[in-house]
Amino acid sequence: MSQAFQDTYPPELSHCYGCGANNASGHQLKSYWDGDETVATFTPGPEHTALPGYVYGGLIASLVDCHGTGSASAAGHRAQGREMGSEPPLRYVTGSLHVDYVAPTPMGVELTLRGVIEEVTERKVVVSETVEANGTVVAKGKVVAVLMPEGMGRG
Amino acid sequence: MSQAFQDTYPPELSHCYGCGANNASGHQLKSYWDGDETVATFTPGPEHTALPGYVYGGLIASLVDCHGTGSASAAGHRAQGREMGSEPPLRYVTGSLHVDYVAPTPMGVELTLRGVIEEVTERKVVVSETVEANGTVVAKGKVVAVLMPEGMGRG
Repeated sequence: MSQAFQDTYPPELSHCYGCGANNASGHQLKSYWDGDETVATFTPGPEHTALPGYVYGGLIASLVDCHGTGSASAAGHRAQGREMGSEPPLRYVTGSLHVDYVAPTPMGVELTLRGVIEEVTERKVVVSETVEANGTVVAKGKVVAVLMPEGMGRG
Repeated sequence: MSQAFQDTYPPELSHCYGCGANNASGHQLKSYWDGDETVATFTPGPEHTALPGYVYGGLIASLVDCHGTGSASAAGHRAQGREMGSEPPLRYVTGSLHVDYVAPTPMGVELTLRGVIEEVTERKVVVSETVEANGTVVAKGKVVAVLMPEGMGRG
């Protein structure tokens, strides 16, 4: 499998709780291309409970957020015809996040996040997402990702 | 100060990662009435980083989610003219969550969440929220909370 989007981020941009390779306490989400879509998987831990047997919606929102900004970075690089990891890095922050919870999410199951790139402009990428558990869509999301402001993460 | 909304939940509904009193690993968010608004405060830990110096948006989404469902429960009880903690408990799940990130959120600062009850129907409560850091609004949110389906949390 090719390198995860998040593993191409420079070290100083790899502290994110949701997806930073350098955050030992975090989720370390890993996202990949699957054709023109993006995909990531994550298995919630027992602490990520909402009600007994069901996954906490805030975790799902976090995963949608990080898969969205990761997908945005991948799409931004692809739109410029260059590899992730090349300079300068295109790193995105979340402008807005929307999640519709369409079914209760069972615990103890690997979740699959799929992203579709809806729009790429110079400063913005829009990603729509689904979250599946056992082949059933449990949540639908949309992330508007905005190119990181100058000076926010480096220097 | 009066009892936190979340501390009135029955024990079997107190496992939530974001706000359950019985989840030792979780955030244990506490929400209160402040007149007709609801308020909660939370200070992110160093692990809740997005980029160095800034708070992870997924955490903010989680807090908006839990303050929203907690506020919904409080508003649902108030609409029925009864105390939280009386039977049967009115516990809500998140139907949808929206967060606009309007400014970067600095680390090391207590965040204040404020909720305004927009709508209360028999099965649904809509809560709009702001998140402030150092007196500046850093995020705006909206939660559509839906009365918990029968059998999801009890029995």
